[in-house]
Amino acid sequence: MDRSDPRYLRSRASILDAARSLLLSGGPGAVTHVQVATQAGVGRATVYRHWPRAEDLLGDVMETVPFPFFSEPRTPTREWLRSTVAELVDQLQLTEVRAVATTLASASVWDAAMDRRRERFTSVLRDRVASALTEAAERGEVELRVPADQAAALVLGAVHYRAVLEHARADPAVVDAAVDAVGTWSA
Amino acid sequence: MDRSDPRYLRSRASILDAARSLLLSGGPGAVTHVQVATQAGVGRATVYRHWPRAEDLLGDVMETVPFPFFSEPRTPTREWLRSTVAELVDQLQLTEVRAVATTLASASVWDAAMDRRRERFTSVLRDRVASALTEAAERGEVELRVPADQAAALVLGAVHYRAVLEHARADPAVVDAAVDAVGTWSA
Repeated sequence: MDRSDPRYLRSRASILDAARSLLLSGGPGAVTHVQVATQAGVGRATVYRHWPRAEDLLGDVMETVPFPFFSEPRTPTREWLRSTVAELVDQLQLTEVRAVATTLASASVWDAAMDRRRERFTSVLRDRVASALTEAAERGEVELRVPADQAAALVLGAVHYRAVLEHARADPAVVDAAVDAVGTWSA
Repeated sequence: MDRSDPRYLRSRASILDAARSLLLSGGPGAVTHVQVATQAGVGRATVYRHWPRAEDLLGDVMETVPFPFFSEPRTPTREWLRSTVAELVDQLQLTEVRAVATTLASASVWDAAMDRRRERFTSVLRDRVASALTEAAERGEVELRVPADQAAALVLGAVHYRAVLEHARADPAVVDAAVDAVGTWSA
């Protein structure tokens, strides 16, 4: 198929629109071939033709929407971190979300475009967590024991490892322990 | 090339032997096409023909050797964990090792053989850390705050996340914080 064909471009745009609205309303797990086709009003085969793998469509559409996690810090910071990480634990149980996370990591070894996407996602997470924790430290909520820009790895690493390497769900005690690990919390 | 051809099988076996001996002497980073070819006494093109990607050769040969990390617990357990995780931080800086870690995670989403390999690696790590920490708890070294079989994710998750998602090295303070997070250490 000619990729400059107006019908090709139109169906591509309507699929991206549908995927974006599903992502925003239902989270990453809602971005499936079936739901995207229904929402976009195109056949499922059309979605498969543009994006054979759902995780690639999800990856593409995630670039077009603001990434929600850790975007709006609340206090107490410790509780906010715990509940946000717990949400991520839920999201990481979805096969498509795990697929995006692992595809970002592995393809980025040899694919420069994927590597930029990986860097963009992880730097957003890293910067949001770092800035929330820096402000929490200034308010006296916590005394950090790790560099602020490595706190995201500490807070998210265990649940990510559980999901992508052990294919299992992190216990709430693990989430709490990971959040507590960034420093000494005053409350 | 006929895969039952004796020459094919012979060169495959000699490449695996060479890769195994390089892995044991030099660690995963030593398993490169160049070094394997030299050690096996075959041309580099032959190694590429059998294993186009060095990480797949490394993955195959890792199945044939005892996996060293966390295999011999020492006391104090806290120091032993810290130094073992620090070794892994070094290993994870090597592109090939990162590639194995990420390939295991991502390919396992759709590849059953890779999925068994992932499960085998992670269960070895999980069980070794769990049993060392259970014994440490019995000796009174630590009071665990997470299920013992999720301690590996906590201890390794942050350094894994730093390596595969942020392509960066975990600070020693992060290693210490992750090890401390498993519970209350008495010393």
